[in-house]
Formats: sequence, C-alpha cells, structure tokens
Amino acid sequence: MFSVTVRDHLMIAHSLRGEVFGPAQALHGATYVVDATFRGEQLDDDGIVVDIGRAAEVLHRLVGALTYRNLDDEPDLAGVNTTTEVLARVLADRIVEAVHAGELGGAAHDLAAVVVTLHESHVAWAGYERAL
Amino acid sequence: MFSVTVRDHLMIAHSLRGEVFGPAQALHGATYVVDATFRGEQLDDDGIVVDIGRAAEVLHRLVGALTYRNLDDEPDLAGVNTTTEVLARVLADRIVEAVHAGELGGAAHDLAAVVVTLHESHVAWAGYERAL
Amino acid sequence: MFSVTVRDHLMIAHSLRGEVFGPAQALHGATYVVDATFRGEQLDDDGIVVDIGRAAEVLHRLVGALTYRNLDDEPDLAGVNTTTEVLARVLADRIVEAVHAGELGGAAHDLAAVVVTLHESHVAWAGYERAL
Amino acid sequence: MFSVTVRDHLMIAHSLRGEVFGPAQALHGATYVVDATFRGEQLDDDGIVVDIGRAAEVLHRLVGALTYRNLDDEPDLAGVNTTTEVLARVLADRIVEAVHAGELGGAAHDLAAVVVTLHESHVAWAGYERAL
Amino acid sequence: MFSVTVRDHLMIAHSLRGEVFGPAQALHGATYVVDATFRGEQLDDDGIVVDIGRAAEVLHRLVGALTYRNLDDEPDLAGVNTTTEVLARVLADRIVEAVHAGELGGAAHDLAAVVVTLHESHVAWAGYERAL
Amino acid sequence: MFSVTVRDHLMIAHSLRGEVFGPAQALHGATYVVDATFRGEQLDDDGIVVDIGRAAEVLHRLVGALTYRNLDDEPDLAGVNTTTEVLARVLADRIVEAVHAGELGGAAHDLAAVVVTLHESHVAWAGYERAL
Repeated sequence: MFSVTVRDHLMIAHSLRGEVFGPAQALHGATYVVDATFRGEQLDDDGIVVDIGRAAEVLHRLVGALTYRNLDDEPDLAGVNTTTEVLARVLADRIVEAVHAGELGGAAHDLAAVVVTLHESHVAWAGYERAL
Repeated sequence: MFSVTVRDHLMIAHSLRGEVFGPAQALHGATYVVDATFRGEQLDDDGIVVDIGRAAEVLHRLVGALTYRNLDDEPDLAGVNTTTEVLARVLADRIVEAVHAGELGGAAHDLAAVVVTLHESHVAWAGYERAL
Repeated sequence: MFSVTVRDHLMIAHSLRGEVFGPAQALHGATYVVDATFRGEQLDDDGIVVDIGRAAEVLHRLVGALTYRNLDDEPDLAGVNTTTEVLARVLADRIVEAVHAGELGGAAHDLAAVVVTLHESHVAWAGYERAL
Repeated sequence: MFSVTVRDHLMIAHSLRGEVFGPAQALHGATYVVDATFRGEQLDDDGIVVDIGRAAEVLHRLVGALTYRNLDDEPDLAGVNTTTEVLARVLADRIVEAVHAGELGGAAHDLAAVVVTLHESHVAWAGYERAL
Repeated sequence: MFSVTVRDHLMIAHSLRGEVFGPAQALHGATYVVDATFRGEQLDDDGIVVDIGRAAEVLHRLVGALTYRNLDDEPDLAGVNTTTEVLARVLADRIVEAVHAGELGGAAHDLAAVVVTLHESHVAWAGYERAL
Repeated sequence: MFSVTVRDHLMIAHSLRGEVFGPAQALHGATYVVDATFRGEQLDDDGIVVDIGRAAEVLHRLVGALTYRNLDDEPDLAGVNTTTEVLARVLADRIVEAVHAGELGGAAHDLAAVVVTLHESHVAWAGYERAL
C-alpha cells in the first residue's frame, strides 16, 4: 500500500456542547495542523498515488473555507459539535467529494482510503480514516 | 475509523539482558515520549471517541507510576526485559485495564483498539497495538 | 550563558483590530504552544538555572489563566490587540512577576532574561525577550 | 502488533518525467528523511521485534548507496520515475532483501511487514508498506 | 526584543566545490526548510513587529525563485559555493532588500535584524543573522 | 553572524542530589537529544563556518563517551550534579577542547561561540553557550 500526505492548518473559534468538555464548553479556539493522507494500492503511469500539487491545493482550499471563522456561526456546521474527531470527518468527507468531482486528477481514481489527522496541540491529535 | 492520541513522557533507568543489546546491557536510561492512541468505529452522542481529558489523566497516572525509577528494581517488572517494545505493551495493557475499569468514561465502551508508541530518541521509536 | 526551557499550550478565541489583519479581524482562535526560556549566567549550588519543576508549574498556571477563553472578553486584556507578539509579552511579564514574587525559588534570583515563544502553527511563531 | 522504527536521511538530485510534475520536471533535488518501520506479531526471547542496532545499520547502508547522487544517472534506477512513492518502494524492497539475506538477525524472521516513509519537506511525505 | 518567524521550503540540486565536502562534491540535492525571523525592539500601533501575512508572501516569493532549480546553473549564483550557510545569507540579503523596498509594510521600518535558518535534514541546519 | 548546528543523542542513567529535584533524586535516566551549534562571524574560502561532517563526527564521539552509562559511576563526573544544564556545559567544554585540538579543521579557527542544547523530553530542554 502506498500513501501520500500533505499538511496545512486552520485557526478557528468554537465552543463544545456537553458536560464532558468541562472548560471547553466556553467559547475558545484552536489551531489545527491538518494532515491529509491518500492511500492507494497502485501507482499510476507517472509513479504517483495522487498529484501531490493538486492534493495540496484541494486541502488548502478546504481548510481555507473554515479558517478565521467562529464555527458556532457556520451554517454548514449548524447543530454539529465540532470536536476534533468530527472536524476530521468533515474534512475527510469534503476531500472525498473533491476526489469524486475529479479535482485531484486521474491518479486519484484508484484511491483506497483518505485519512485526515488534526493536531490541536503538541500533546493531542485526532483523526478519521474513510475507505473509498 | 476514528482515533484520538494524547502524549506524555517518562524518564527511567534500566539495563537490558541479551548479547543483542551490546552496550545497552549496562545500566543506562531513557526518556520515552509516549503517545497513547484510542481507536473506535463510532463517535458517541458528544461526538468523541474517548474523553480526551480523562485519556490524558489516565496516561499521566500510568507513566507517573514508572517515571523517575530504575526499572531493574521494579517488583511489577521483575524478570521482564524492558525493551521499548515490551514497555509499549506494558503501558497498552495498563490502559486497557483502565478502560475496562471505567476510568475513561462511557465513550470508551466501544473502543476498537489501543496503540502505544514510545519514542526513545529523535531517530528511534517502537509501538504496540492491542485490539479491544 | 545557561538556559532552561519548558513547554505548555493554551487554546483561545480572539479577534484582531486593524486592516493589516485581513480575515483575522473576524472572531477566530488559536492554539499557542508556549515555550518559556529562563537564562542565567550562573548555576546555583544545585547546578541549575531555575527549578524546572517550579518553572513548569508557574507556566502551567499562567497559561491556565488564559486558556479556554475568548480573549476579546478578558477584563485583563481590555483594549489590548492580542497579537502573538503581544501575548508573548503578556506571558513574559507575568512570568517575571512570578520570579519577583519568589514563585520560582531561590535559583531564579540571578536570572538574566526570560524569553517567551508562542507557536501559532507549524509555520509561524513569535516571541518576546525581556532582560531582568 | 508490535513495531520498531528507525530514522535516517538522504540528499539527492533528480528530475521527474510527466506533465503532472510541472516545475519538478526540471533537475532539482530533495532531502528525504526516511523512517523504516518493522512490524511483527510476536517478540523474540530477547523481547524485540528486530535488532534495532542492525536495523539502523541496514537503513544507513541503504540510504548511503543513494545519497549525494543524481538519481537520473543511477544505473539501478534507469527508466524509473523517482517520485517519493517510488523511492519509498525501492527502499522497502531493498530492506526486505536484507531481511531475507539475514542481515537483520534472527528476530526479523517473523516480521509481518516493512513500511518506509520518506519526508520530502515539513508539509509533504509519502510511504510504502509491504507485507512479508 | 520581539521576534516573528515564518516557515517555508525549497528543493534544489547543486554541487559543492572543495575537498572538505567529500561526496557532496557530486551533483546531489536538498530540501531546505527555511525559517525567516524578523526581530524588532518595538511593536507598531497594531501590536506587530511585521505583517506576518506579508512576511510569509515575501518568503514564499523568494524561495519560489530558487526552488526546482539546479543552483549550479543559476546566473545569480555563478561562482558561489552554495553551502547552507551561504544560501542562508543569500536569502537574508534578499529579505532585507524586500524590507527596504517596502514590501513588508510600515511595521518593518524599525526591524533590528533578520535571521534565516535553513534546515537541510532532521540532524543539521545552518543560519545567518543580519542586523538592520 | 553565521551558525551551523548538528544533532545527535545519548541515553544515560543518573540521580540528582538536592531536595529541589524531588523524585529525580532517585536513580532514573534520560535520553538527551543534543544540538551542537557553532557560531562564527566569517565564512572561510569554502563558504563554511565549520566542516559539518567533522562537527557531526566530533559530536558523535563525545556523546558516545557518555551514552549507555550510569553517570553516577563515571570517574570524569565524580562529584558533579549532572543536571541538564551541567551536562550541556560538560559537552560544550569538550567540544571547545576539540576545536582547540584542531579536530574540527581549519574553518573552526574563527569560531565566535559554541552552544549545546540538551532536549530531555518534548516539553523541557536546557542549554549552555560559551564564547570562544
């Protein structure tokens, strides 16, 4: 199995609903350093899993649609508890949409999985893996 | 599959038994930067795999029970060759015990696996994954 | 010159005032990974610049007083544009107060400088150095 | 499942063939920070997956055979488009040959997989996993 | 003293002239992860040392002018032995030119120094500091 | 001012004397990731501050003389409280001896300073800078 990963980041405000979150129920924020991994069993004729340039562009566009926002006010995330796990899934789902829309090019047709990891600090991170 | 990881560290002395270890057969020591990963197929109603605060507390307590020790003298590790692989398993097993004892809260009931990775330097690390 | 550094982090919401900040004028947030460095020309009789345990505790208390907050609503920061540079100075000033109040112990009497560095992402950080 | 990873690096020149590579079709170069991971279900009697010292030596020899070269001129890589994915496979295959030749010692007999990850910058990396 | 740092990278081929470089006299290459630090004694009215957005743009343009090249063929570097130290100075000088040309905005008028650090691997880096 | 840094590591056991060290008074251990920085105002005719290959070799030899040891039993360190600060000075002093003995080559004649930084974990490090 091959994999390619690109890294970007986003900076958001949000609050979390549920007693389990303790002080994080208050409005606060986070930088998420985001790793998007593309897995595939085969390389294409160019010797790649995915066009890494396109992968970086798609990731940059997707994190750009969320960064410098208060996620509590985002219509697309209404009713969503934006935990790190949930945000990883949101980004993975949007990347998969971009794959299906052809935005990552022909090499991406045979992807086996997409994994998104969000680092919220130097001591905590969360991820979501979605098979294709 | 979702995952959540928390990081902590411990600093110990020990020696390793076996010719394969060369100079590491002498009493020496290590800092292990420890990553504990919790994997699960589902999020609970709060949108989490595991309560990250409790996960960090449990990890901190477990590494606290080993740090600033000479592992050669630990009764719990008598007869154990405390390689990085073995210590990763010891910590993973203790984390699983904590999960079963309910110390990580209700979200942890559906965990699929626990992974512990011990970084012994900037150029070497080892890990152990245990299914639940 | 000797130095000792301890690392912690805080997660906040805030907005920045001024056209120069572009989209960061909106309410958003950040994780700051915080490095506090203590510099001194001499070691004390124990062979330390500062009690690293106390240094970590003081830093943890000071970042704890800001984390999980919306800095726009903090009375202590009213009228302050909480750029990364400014927050580095705020934390450095509070550390120096703690040094003067004796909270870092006797070894800290001879400190030459305190430096605070705030990492706001994997590609940007800012710092403030204050002589003592 | 246990794993052990060792890290090394290599510095090469090369060019990539294919329009998808854009400016990287020109002769340029890269540092690859290389992580070689050895996975196994069992520990041997010494408590290890693989002799980490031998693993580091083998990796160092293999990256040494490529470093400070122009890969476009390497006879062994003639006709190969040396993308990061392809180089990860080349190194993984050579590590597996070394395992089969007994260079990693007896503990390596029961390895389940070898994974090679090449970090080409702080924001991009690729890997190849090969089952044994 | 305040500081702000932004990070980017470039990937080049080159060879080094001089017996001291051993195998690095052959055509090879490197990824340089580049940190550009801006130091100043004062913050401007917005509370910044330098507009971090402009700083990142200027750094990206300057590394973009070198990346995906064979530095042995660059007219601007003819006769230059492109060691890591020398490349750090080249980039620092170009950043200072950009500061003087007003490309970093008004806040940059009072900069005290520019520092450029080039990481050539996980175990080696070099830098150049230039006072303004 | 130019600088060149090389990184290596050592793994030791030791105990610390003094109530300030709390549980670290017991025999324990540490991995120190060691950065040795060489600073100089001028580059030599080859365009370097110091021969980076020799610098890495000297650092490797010096950390090799301490690693896999119990520092409490080292004759050279008898009566020394081996705090991270003290070990940074020990290594810096030994590097300066090597510079004076000509082991770093001709380029090292004009060095302005040597800095040694010891990372004892992902959240704590200490250093010593010595002018030449």
